[in-house]
Amino acid sequence: MSQFGFTLLHTDPHSQARRGQIQTRRGTIETPVFMPVGTLGTVKGMLPETLKEEGAEIILGNTYHLFLRPGHELVARLGGLHQFMNWDRPILTDSGGFQVFSLGKLRKITEEGVRFQSHIDGSSHMLTPELSIAVQETLGADIIMAFDECIPYPSTRDYVASSTALSGRWARRCKEARRSDDGAALFGIVQGGMYADLRKQSAEELQEIGFDGYALGGLSVGEEAAAMYDMMEAALPLLPADQPRYVMGVGTPENLIEGVARGVDMFDCVMPTRNARNGVLFTNFGKVVIKQARYAEDPLPIDPDCDCYVCRHYSRAYLRHLYQNNEILAAMLHTRHNLHYYLGLMAGARDAIAAGRFTEYRQEFYRRRQPESAA
Amino acid sequence: MSQFGFTLLHTDPHSQARRGQIQTRRGTIETPVFMPVGTLGTVKGMLPETLKEEGAEIILGNTYHLFLRPGHELVARLGGLHQFMNWDRPILTDSGGFQVFSLGKLRKITEEGVRFQSHIDGSSHMLTPELSIAVQETLGADIIMAFDECIPYPSTRDYVASSTALSGRWARRCKEARRSDDGAALFGIVQGGMYADLRKQSAEELQEIGFDGYALGGLSVGEEAAAMYDMMEAALPLLPADQPRYVMGVGTPENLIEGVARGVDMFDCVMPTRNARNGVLFTNFGKVVIKQARYAEDPLPIDPDCDCYVCRHYSRAYLRHLYQNNEILAAMLHTRHNLHYYLGLMAGARDAIAAGRFTEYRQEFYRRRQPESAA
Ligand SMILES: [Zn+2]
Ligand SMILES: [Zn+2]
Repeated sequence: MSQFGFTLLHTDPHSQARRGQIQTRRGTIETPVFMPVGTLGTVKGMLPETLKEEGAEIILGNTYHLFLRPGHELVARLGGLHQFMNWDRPILTDSGGFQVFSLGKLRKITEEGVRFQSHIDGSSHMLTPELSIAVQETLGADIIMAFDECIPYPSTRDYVASSTALSGRWARRCKEARRSDDGAALFGIVQGGMYADLRKQSAEELQEIGFDGYALGGLSVGEEAAAMYDMMEAALPLLPADQPRYVMGVGTPENLIEGVARGVDMFDCVMPTRNARNGVLFTNFGKVVIKQARYAEDPLPIDPDCDCYVCRHYSRAYLRHLYQNNEILAAMLHTRHNLHYYLGLMAGARDAIAAGRFTEYRQEFYRRRQPESAA
Repeated sequence: MSQFGFTLLHTDPHSQARRGQIQTRRGTIETPVFMPVGTLGTVKGMLPETLKEEGAEIILGNTYHLFLRPGHELVARLGGLHQFMNWDRPILTDSGGFQVFSLGKLRKITEEGVRFQSHIDGSSHMLTPELSIAVQETLGADIIMAFDECIPYPSTRDYVASSTALSGRWARRCKEARRSDDGAALFGIVQGGMYADLRKQSAEELQEIGFDGYALGGLSVGEEAAAMYDMMEAALPLLPADQPRYVMGVGTPENLIEGVARGVDMFDCVMPTRNARNGVLFTNFGKVVIKQARYAEDPLPIDPDCDCYVCRHYSRAYLRHLYQNNEILAAMLHTRHNLHYYLGLMAGARDAIAAGRFTEYRQEFYRRRQPESAA
């Protein structure tokens, strides 16, 4: 694991925000970072070159989906996920756990792992910590996530405690299953639901096992934002300062700013890409819902202050026309703008932390937002 | 109309093929040319910049579709079709006739024009020669097409004769309806079905009216390729050599080569873009139907001899994976390759005519094609 590391460059004097760099076998990632989601070996509607232009330094792949389609071994025979999808920068893969647990009645948890039925053809599969690691290694991930149970919300304390203990035992098996010589990193995932003391136990147990980085799982699952921030505040200070911290599946622009303020280095979320395809666009002043009739003749870009390709060339009226007619170009342009916004928000946070003005950046972020999306 | 013109640069000694240039108010078009179809103000799945990279010099817009959605007056208020869709090269618009006549029972033809019901909401509209011209002018087309009836195939000689006569009267009304001072060109459309003598009559009548260029309409409507070529041979030699000749809605790669050999300067067809979205890819050796199981683990590009962006970066296995999962990127990449092929085929024809080796180019085209698509 000698190729993986984390360098802490700046810490904010007024918050827990930190500016750092993650070194991977496929290059350096500037943190805090947002990772676009490329579920099936493509960030929907984006060319890899366009992702780079917009500043993406790392993307996320979904183990569950790639395991079922086209299959990790097929991907490996075609040179691995990077070559398969024409992306030469780092890839983080999730463990498959989140998707498997979302299957509801189609899955059954045992000490060994999870038996589940494919959402595509109903075929039966068993996913274990060992298989999850093997699949992620076979895909060629640069950052591999431990296999854990994503705890539903709300859950009883008893359920959370026993599930977190199971995830702990699985984390140990993941560590043991890892090959040690390929340069990829392995991250542990802190569970514990919405119970601060269980989060603490989990964080301590994972550090005892020892990982290259630590994630918080089981957040953004329906809880209030305040509960999410409480859990960040409970767990993040317990994690080693010289290793990267990742909050999984989070979130809104507000969540990102608040996560950064609490010391998070890495985020991923489908929100900018999925919302883009649904015509929901992010801006500094709030959301633009492009199907609204108010935009039918609007000559302004999505955000007059945005300097992205989309805002330089296209009006809201044109984007609404494309969206109303289900044109592919709508998804392409909307996704590009939304990722520009998310990636730009993080680039701005990095600059602000480095310049010692993150507090001002955070205030400015809230000041510019309008309660009702406006134009 | 002083900004529009045609320069004949080379004629092939062994065929009717010709190499020329069309001058428009938005720049020069090298002919013979293929025009990608941008029905609703977007060539589906392509950025305008990518179209340019692939060599597109002019695109086609559909008057019927833009008239209904978003409406030509809205487009005009937003600066015209070029600004609306971020395309600064020439645009040719069809007259709306072809789509209206495709509506079958939803339309009724009179001397005045065509009454039809929108395929979207059933609303009733009347399209006349005068309105068609006004809509095309309002959109800002650089080449405007006369409003005509696209004659179904097969049709009786009586029907073809009377329809062609009606289209002739409409052509005269189109000419009269045209403003003369905006620099856009107006093309007449030769009808006459599959009857050589009616094609001749139509060609002569249109020249008497006088247009900036001439098209053949009512081809590629279900007839045998031989009949299509017969009609080209009957009509094209009757058209003025110093004006551009356009065969509408044609066609396959073979149709393009044979049309060029018969003196056609301009083509348009949805085939490369529509087939792309259906996973049918064009190559020098024939079609690749990407969903076929034979490509599931195929590491080769669509065409190993193609130098397009898609073939330089992606395997058939990856494209098949994208296509099978309805990924937007499949449509983007497939469309890009197919347009690269179509535009490259025409660029090759232009070079071959200029070099006096079009006969060899045509022979080589057939030699490389394999009866069964192969890989
Ligand atoms: Zn923008
Ligand atoms: Zn290609």
